[in-house]
Amino acid sequence: MQLTGLPTTLRAVVNATPKCVGTSAFSTTARNMEGFRMEKDTFGELQVPNEKYYGAQTVRSVMNFPIGDRASERMPLPVIKAFGVLKKAAAEVNTEFGLDPKIAGAISQAADEVISGKLYDDHFPLVIWQTGSGTQSNMNTNEVIANRAIEIMGGELGSKSPVHPNDHVNKSQSSNDTYPTAMHIAVAVEIHEVLLPGLQKLHDALDAKAKEFADIIKIGRTHTQDATPLTLAKNLVGYVTQIAMGIDRIKACLPRVYMLAAGGTAVGTGLNTRIGFAEKVASKVSSLTGLPFVTAPNKFEALAAHDAMVEVSGALNVIACSIMKIANDIRFLGSGPRCGLGELSLPENEPGSSIMPGKVNPTQCEAITMVAAQVMGNHVAVTVGGSNGHFELNVFKPMMVGNVLRSIRLIGDASVAFTDNCVVGIQANREEIHRLLHESLMLVTALNPPIGYDAAAKIAKTAHENGTMLKEEAITLGYLTEEQFKEWVRPEDMLGPK
Amino acid sequence: MQLTGLPTTLRAVVNATPKCVGTSAFSTTARNMEGFRMEKDTFGELQVPNEKYYGAQTVRSVMNFPIGDRASERMPLPVIKAFGVLKKAAAEVNTEFGLDPKIAGAISQAADEVISGKLYDDHFPLVIWQTGSGTQSNMNTNEVIANRAIEIMGGELGSKSPVHPNDHVNKSQSSNDTYPTAMHIAVAVEIHEVLLPGLQKLHDALDAKAKEFADIIKIGRTHTQDATPLTLAKNLVGYVTQIAMGIDRIKACLPRVYMLAAGGTAVGTGLNTRIGFAEKVASKVSSLTGLPFVTAPNKFEALAAHDAMVEVSGALNVIACSIMKIANDIRFLGSGPRCGLGELSLPENEPGSSIMPGKVNPTQCEAITMVAAQVMGNHVAVTVGGSNGHFELNVFKPMMVGNVLRSIRLIGDASVAFTDNCVVGIQANREEIHRLLHESLMLVTALNPPIGYDAAAKIAKTAHENGTMLKEEAITLGYLTEEQFKEWVRPEDMLGPK
Amino acid sequence: MQLTGLPTTLRAVVNATPKCVGTSAFSTTARNMEGFRMEKDTFGELQVPNEKYYGAQTVRSVMNFPIGDRASERMPLPVIKAFGVLKKAAAEVNTEFGLDPKIAGAISQAADEVISGKLYDDHFPLVIWQTGSGTQSNMNTNEVIANRAIEIMGGELGSKSPVHPNDHVNKSQSSNDTYPTAMHIAVAVEIHEVLLPGLQKLHDALDAKAKEFADIIKIGRTHTQDATPLTLAKNLVGYVTQIAMGIDRIKACLPRVYMLAAGGTAVGTGLNTRIGFAEKVASKVSSLTGLPFVTAPNKFEALAAHDAMVEVSGALNVIACSIMKIANDIRFLGSGPRCGLGELSLPENEPGSSIMPGKVNPTQCEAITMVAAQVMGNHVAVTVGGSNGHFELNVFKPMMVGNVLRSIRLIGDASVAFTDNCVVGIQANREEIHRLLHESLMLVTALNPPIGYDAAAKIAKTAHENGTMLKEEAITLGYLTEEQFKEWVRPEDMLGPK
Amino acid sequence: MQLTGLPTTLRAVVNATPKCVGTSAFSTTARNMEGFRMEKDTFGELQVPNEKYYGAQTVRSVMNFPIGDRASERMPLPVIKAFGVLKKAAAEVNTEFGLDPKIAGAISQAADEVISGKLYDDHFPLVIWQTGSGTQSNMNTNEVIANRAIEIMGGELGSKSPVHPNDHVNKSQSSNDTYPTAMHIAVAVEIHEVLLPGLQKLHDALDAKAKEFADIIKIGRTHTQDATPLTLAKNLVGYVTQIAMGIDRIKACLPRVYMLAAGGTAVGTGLNTRIGFAEKVASKVSSLTGLPFVTAPNKFEALAAHDAMVEVSGALNVIACSIMKIANDIRFLGSGPRCGLGELSLPENEPGSSIMPGKVNPTQCEAITMVAAQVMGNHVAVTVGGSNGHFELNVFKPMMVGNVLRSIRLIGDASVAFTDNCVVGIQANREEIHRLLHESLMLVTALNPPIGYDAAAKIAKTAHENGTMLKEEAITLGYLTEEQFKEWVRPEDMLGPK
Repeated sequence: MQLTGLPTTLRAVVNATPKCVGTSAFSTTARNMEGFRMEKDTFGELQVPNEKYYGAQTVRSVMNFPIGDRASERMPLPVIKAFGVLKKAAAEVNTEFGLDPKIAGAISQAADEVISGKLYDDHFPLVIWQTGSGTQSNMNTNEVIANRAIEIMGGELGSKSPVHPNDHVNKSQSSNDTYPTAMHIAVAVEIHEVLLPGLQKLHDALDAKAKEFADIIKIGRTHTQDATPLTLAKNLVGYVTQIAMGIDRIKACLPRVYMLAAGGTAVGTGLNTRIGFAEKVASKVSSLTGLPFVTAPNKFEALAAHDAMVEVSGALNVIACSIMKIANDIRFLGSGPRCGLGELSLPENEPGSSIMPGKVNPTQCEAITMVAAQVMGNHVAVTVGGSNGHFELNVFKPMMVGNVLRSIRLIGDASVAFTDNCVVGIQANREEIHRLLHESLMLVTALNPPIGYDAAAKIAKTAHENGTMLKEEAITLGYLTEEQFKEWVRPEDMLGPK
Repeated sequence: MQLTGLPTTLRAVVNATPKCVGTSAFSTTARNMEGFRMEKDTFGELQVPNEKYYGAQTVRSVMNFPIGDRASERMPLPVIKAFGVLKKAAAEVNTEFGLDPKIAGAISQAADEVISGKLYDDHFPLVIWQTGSGTQSNMNTNEVIANRAIEIMGGELGSKSPVHPNDHVNKSQSSNDTYPTAMHIAVAVEIHEVLLPGLQKLHDALDAKAKEFADIIKIGRTHTQDATPLTLAKNLVGYVTQIAMGIDRIKACLPRVYMLAAGGTAVGTGLNTRIGFAEKVASKVSSLTGLPFVTAPNKFEALAAHDAMVEVSGALNVIACSIMKIANDIRFLGSGPRCGLGELSLPENEPGSSIMPGKVNPTQCEAITMVAAQVMGNHVAVTVGGSNGHFELNVFKPMMVGNVLRSIRLIGDASVAFTDNCVVGIQANREEIHRLLHESLMLVTALNPPIGYDAAAKIAKTAHENGTMLKEEAITLGYLTEEQFKEWVRPEDMLGPK
Repeated sequence: MQLTGLPTTLRAVVNATPKCVGTSAFSTTARNMEGFRMEKDTFGELQVPNEKYYGAQTVRSVMNFPIGDRASERMPLPVIKAFGVLKKAAAEVNTEFGLDPKIAGAISQAADEVISGKLYDDHFPLVIWQTGSGTQSNMNTNEVIANRAIEIMGGELGSKSPVHPNDHVNKSQSSNDTYPTAMHIAVAVEIHEVLLPGLQKLHDALDAKAKEFADIIKIGRTHTQDATPLTLAKNLVGYVTQIAMGIDRIKACLPRVYMLAAGGTAVGTGLNTRIGFAEKVASKVSSLTGLPFVTAPNKFEALAAHDAMVEVSGALNVIACSIMKIANDIRFLGSGPRCGLGELSLPENEPGSSIMPGKVNPTQCEAITMVAAQVMGNHVAVTVGGSNGHFELNVFKPMMVGNVLRSIRLIGDASVAFTDNCVVGIQANREEIHRLLHESLMLVTALNPPIGYDAAAKIAKTAHENGTMLKEEAITLGYLTEEQFKEWVRPEDMLGPK
Repeated sequence: MQLTGLPTTLRAVVNATPKCVGTSAFSTTARNMEGFRMEKDTFGELQVPNEKYYGAQTVRSVMNFPIGDRASERMPLPVIKAFGVLKKAAAEVNTEFGLDPKIAGAISQAADEVISGKLYDDHFPLVIWQTGSGTQSNMNTNEVIANRAIEIMGGELGSKSPVHPNDHVNKSQSSNDTYPTAMHIAVAVEIHEVLLPGLQKLHDALDAKAKEFADIIKIGRTHTQDATPLTLAKNLVGYVTQIAMGIDRIKACLPRVYMLAAGGTAVGTGLNTRIGFAEKVASKVSSLTGLPFVTAPNKFEALAAHDAMVEVSGALNVIACSIMKIANDIRFLGSGPRCGLGELSLPENEPGSSIMPGKVNPTQCEAITMVAAQVMGNHVAVTVGGSNGHFELNVFKPMMVGNVLRSIRLIGDASVAFTDNCVVGIQANREEIHRLLHESLMLVTALNPPIGYDAAAKIAKTAHENGTMLKEEAITLGYLTEEQFKEWVRPEDMLGPK
């Protein structure tokens, strides 16, 4: 077919990446004619585009892991920002342990640019699918910060002088403790920046709707069948409670997310770092982010397991269940316009059927329930990764944090879209709600006390058989008068305990 | 609280199990006063109840794995029956390789009793949670068959003579190839005995209902909103197709389920077995079961991976999705009696509300959708187990087959219950279906050709605003006569392409 | 094949169940010749075995839901016990609202027998696969308690007098609020009785081992490759931390598990109950169980969603990940005896290979990792169920609680078995650990400071190429003396920051 | 922290999108000063950037669904290409049903550009999170093709003349049948273009390695413990079988993937399309793609359920299990260099430890096992979506196909990377393999026949206790001579049945 051989986005990128040229006699920073400089690592030399801050190790990773569409599989921005925070914190702490303050200052300034996100698109090309420790993204960050700091200090890109990516930027650190540190920072920040605000917004909108609908009595439904009445408000308050508890669940995980691995270095012992480094870095990260990060009480656990990620993912999974339930209810209550339950009208945001007025597809419900399903799936990926650590290092790190961050973002964003484009605009179809309530046979239960169970049951049975109303049959059967019916059958008296 | 310290079922069982008494001077079959005989394995001696056919290795497993409620966690009966089939087949084949035909005959007879299931409750006490290769259930079977064969031949239980559990019953076999063989036999048999008949029954009942409802035109629903009409039959034919394809999906897995590991022995090489044994055993199992088992083309794969189990579980997972969809639809279409969609009446099988006639809880839908959720969960357990094999042996075998068998049984049984107690009794509420269809505004699309899009849209919009019927507004607006409306708006003409 | 037509356990049970005989002229408690009494519900009459306390609704459920092996699919004992607690509490509270204290007393006494578990096997035959609200198990409990109370008071079984299952035992209750109440009670109790003690035991044993191995320095492994050293103790302390945090995670869920739905009745409004009933019942349940149950702040959420179950299941899922990691490490560190890592010796609990000494199969690791996989699967089933509630009632209740309770039990029990039969008996192979550590090339990093990076790297490279030891090559290459090597290369100095 | 308020990529995109300006007096194609043209849909007017081919409905979707990072959440390219194929096919078929051939030709030409992928980045801005029927991506395609066709024919963008997005490009189609058609086309094409070639490449490389290692006898490992020997080739052949069967499993799903919904229109009836359209379109798609697509035998199933997607995802899930097993084995067999199993040397692709020669991190194993975990998670998302269809339409379509396509791409790409950068470079450490084999005590089983079980066991036990070699102890104990040992203990004789 003519699709054959179409270059995929990824392959285009890969083809464009510099070729490895093996060992060479050139200086490590020789710039060649075509806009590349030569960089060297312990494996030999390769070409790095002149305008890039990253170096050889980043290029190798691009070459070795051409997996997935590069645009959609990238190491998430929040991880890169978190690395910026960590590198800045480490540089500042390292001045206490001998790092030249000028170098530390340049690193700190370069790290700020990483934190700003502006270097992300051009200088952080790596995808999630790389070494499972995230080493290459740590090195990507080290290279970018070192080169940008070199530039700030007037040096030559790729020269590793006066700022060395390992000796200076990565000082007292290892990929094995920096990447999990970045994971925790990124997740905590995104929870605060995207997830909790989104959930709170949804919570508040549902709560406002509950207040708006406080006086509307409607039929209840259990087993999808007609049941005793409740107010539409109570319906919504159930959802408000679910979201509120979801927020509580997320917050209950945070103490363990705030624990940072930094200072554990390669295996958790802290070899090659300095006494006090771990605590000082955590404290610095805390002041940079405004979140109460602490150094992990046990660094071995912090490198070898990512139970805290599985835990957060589990809390997100609960919220996904809540959302699926809420959005399903809303679309069913809003089904119609003529042949559904029809109790709610959802706002119309885009053309549905061009000729069919009132056919408002619940597209926001659809988007957010798809998000819920995705979060449940992401959770299993996180679980599988979390269970597969071996010895001193879990090597499913980028995949795990990628899924947790995606779930956070999707729930946070979808909550906002769902609130803005659906919840706030929900209207109650009071007439229809009233009609359904009063056509319901469930109200017969109100007649038990005044006329007895048997008589009440007979009224209901007759009305069911004849397809008629309770009042009509009650009067016809001679059990009561219309006035009595009105006095005794009052849905507003059926809304709570006596 | 007073619940504290209550003996659980399991613990009661465990406490009742014979104690290990260490090495002893007694003969290995000495029967003591209290109804126990002493048996010996390489670990020393322990007490075995006199009336039990199992021996020391079974007792040790009971002692070492007090995990879960013993009744609900038992090694599934189909696995034990499958072991019976395998041991019978092996004994018969082994006569070609020197096994005394008298011994083989006794083994074969004892194996028949295992196949019958009558020894299961008393002589197969082990649970799923044991060694991950299922070794202990293989030994349990060897011990039971050996002792029962000894009994048949007039020997003494526990004497291992004239029939030895290892030398004779397990001849040319290893746990590592017998257990996966039993897995495949059990799954194939249960698919044929429980799953496919159950699905076929459901399929046929849905198909019969589709024929019964062939002439009923109803409103369609997309996005849960009113859409263009279709027949109720077509609705059901969609379900029939899902189940039919589900059957196809299961059958598509069978070629790989029919592949037996027997003959691979400990690591897949077939060491300690005889050339031809593998093929002959598969052939014998095939003739015993009537199913086309073959020897696995690669025994290493057959021991070290259980992809075939993951595959079958995946097909069951698809069926679970189908079932969830079908049962959800049925309960929503049957919702009411007054405040739901009300198109279907489901049979009433048990008292719902005592006073509320017509409130028929869709309990069969509820049971089968719970089954669907369970099957989806079981599938993940099977997946995790299947992904965690190491080197020459996957050691998640009992857990994997336990879940696959449970899924098979639950879907098979639930399909029967759902068919008998729900599907065959579904009635169409023709009046309500008719009413909804004709109240729908979707029918306006039929007016496009005769009066034009704009006029048709105006009619629909007006009817929607006024809560009136299309015909009424069409006439009032002067676009057509009542006769024209009847001629042009014919749902029966909207059921297919032109 | 001869397996065809074998009666399954279930079918035998079903065949043995009493047949529905339709409406009849007999008195509702007439005892017929064959040991059955006739009972009547709104559907007609059916036979109930004379010796059973349950009644018509239980029998109907047995008949209508022949799904799965009855032994393994039963409504879990902890749910039935929890119902006993709830019914006792309700009876006592109901005396404040007019229930005859004599009747309440008899109910309370009968409930104690339900709590004791002794009625479970004979009088609670229902499986999980029933109505999704658990109504039938609520009625089963009501029938059993009513009949047992009748018996206590000298009445006739099945007469519903002087104790009526609905009017007295179920007073102020509905299935819709009792079943979720029983779910929460059962889960909270099992967490305290089975899960937390099991985890604590495992935690303590690992902690003791860590102390025992405090002085053993071993090679670290990252990416499954040799890394810098750590103590064996630190390894274990990582696991201790995981389990300790797992306990914290479970405890963090408890506040929401302690919230009871009782008092919400059919849709959450509390219709037909009395003001104060909800709070008083929760308080009574709390005093009966010794656990701090409270009435749920929102009953609508408590009936319509089971997010608290999904949450607990999520915490169990984290623990499953921890367990998988820990048990995997232990079996790999204990692999051998000659061709594996060989750092640990695991206790031998059963015969492995009869001729192969030292081949100790890590069967406890296998059992507990199978449990871990199962818990991950159960979690998905709970998630799917939790996401599928509709309107005022989630109808996946029995399936959800069944999975949560199974996960609790399996983890709790497996933790005990794993501790008793594996962890406490783990021995460190000090010689092998020492040998591996000193053969490792990683120790070369200690030579960086004294002789410089380049020289150190050269030593390591030479040793790697020649398959020799660092010391040997260091001396041969002339970089240092044997004394210097001993002074500089000290693993005990590589265990932490400086 | 300074991260607060950072614009995310998404928000930047959203802010840049044109604002809805409500109804307006401008002509629908008026181009304003700032580079926007005004377009109108039934909701009013809004600004569309002049250079974009998409129109109002696409813009509305961008505005209404600001969910997730736009770069990583985009509607996958293969879906857009598949839409191109479908629209081209429909246009060509529609000429048989009255579509002006000139318009059809322009549509066909524009569709070719969509198929080429070159319009993707600039003209297809929508994400997965939109209406669950994929309507908006269908409209996006209609708008782009219509405008590009208009341009080709010399018309004005946005004028809907001479080519109308609905009347011409979408002729005889509905979102409800086009999107699932595009799903099936995209999945089938990606399976053939990315998945199967990747798996075949991995298969062939493993097969070649098996041949290369045909003569290497190594120790087997069961329960992670030493077992009887096999060849390294057999080990690999197990993997080859897994991959080959994985290919078979995918192919077994294809018949149902080849079934196209096109022609079903809104609810599956085919209303508003023409008799023969469905078959002709499928045939045309088949000739355009070279794949044997057919029209779905049941269109109701094809719209309302996506079991075929769940099925394919299930097959991908099996392959994920295979991959996890294979890559785990390889990294464990390659563990070391000194303190692991050390049987394999994996190629070194990037700097591991700078000073630690031989520490080759198995990064390709890490990437591909992360992929495996992701695929397992994606599968659950697909399952949840597949189970949640309601009535005539499943509205989890974009999420489902997004996950299936991602899994296909990840497995396909990772298989290639794993093959190129790991498998082909695997080397066997023959000396170490030989040493382990001969140090193993398992070889003692070869002495059973010549010297008897008891003597053999004694030799093994003694060697185990003393940490010595079998030969040494056998001779010392006087059971045999060195020559006899060499004659009898021959691993090459232990590789199969006799």
